[in-house]
Amino acid sequence: MAIQRTGARLRPIGKIRSIIKKRSQAPKLGSEGAPDAWLEVSPFAAQGLDGLLAGGDIIVITWLHRARRSVLRVHPRSDRRRPLTGVFATRSPDRPNPLGLHRVTVRRVAKNRLRIGPIEVLDGTPVIDIKPVLSGLQDF
Amino acid sequence: MAIQRTGARLRPIGKIRSIIKKRSQAPKLGSEGAPDAWLEVSPFAAQGLDGLLAGGDIIVITWLHRARRSVLRVHPRSDRRRPLTGVFATRSPDRPNPLGLHRVTVRRVAKNRLRIGPIEVLDGTPVIDIKPVLSGLQDF
Repeated sequence: MAIQRTGARLRPIGKIRSIIKKRSQAPKLGSEGAPDAWLEVSPFAAQGLDGLLAGGDIIVITWLHRARRSVLRVHPRSDRRRPLTGVFATRSPDRPNPLGLHRVTVRRVAKNRLRIGPIEVLDGTPVIDIKPVLSGLQDF
Repeated sequence: MAIQRTGARLRPIGKIRSIIKKRSQAPKLGSEGAPDAWLEVSPFAAQGLDGLLAGGDIIVITWLHRARRSVLRVHPRSDRRRPLTGVFATRSPDRPNPLGLHRVTVRRVAKNRLRIGPIEVLDGTPVIDIKPVLSGLQDF
């Protein structure tokens, strides 16, 4: 099947430097008391930052490298009183392709580093992509 | 460097079935007159759909398999009068990891297929992840 041949390999463009060192310290959502962090962009990709300015919002896509990729159903928010739900109907990090989606504000641009936040991911989390939030665009 | 070892391989969870067959037919954004399409989820991942309902909005993450991964700066919207800009400050499909981000409405759920739209991607585009839009969540 064509779909099986696609298995593209991700090339991280950078990583997060955060004070959050353990999963137990991480809020489930950025809006739930998460700190600011540094997004360090690798030299090979630094040119891709041209035009990003402090004050704007961006969408950061991360690779949640501690997640379990074989999980298809979870209790939402790890609350066992809530019924098992398909991972595509939840924001669980456990899922076949554990991409994290984070809308954050750019606080500062310092060469190939962005100060961003709030963001709930662990120190060392790989960053896969950055997209601008476009005003007037209904999608985000 | 730790970052280089991460290169995770994506496993598509499905693909888009659309009337858009050529890149020249695709609007640049879903809000610019894009059609509805089918999202066919592969049997291995179908259980992950449990709990998704017609009428809600979801975020579909695709792999834009025709994109050029070596591009770091583009003219926004392919308009050569606009200055070269870093890809992370644009929604260009050309970027190191060509993930597409699409907020769409679920029109219908039919077993392992979702009727969704509007969405601007080509027929056959691999789907990598699906996330719910959470009301009350500020990120999307």
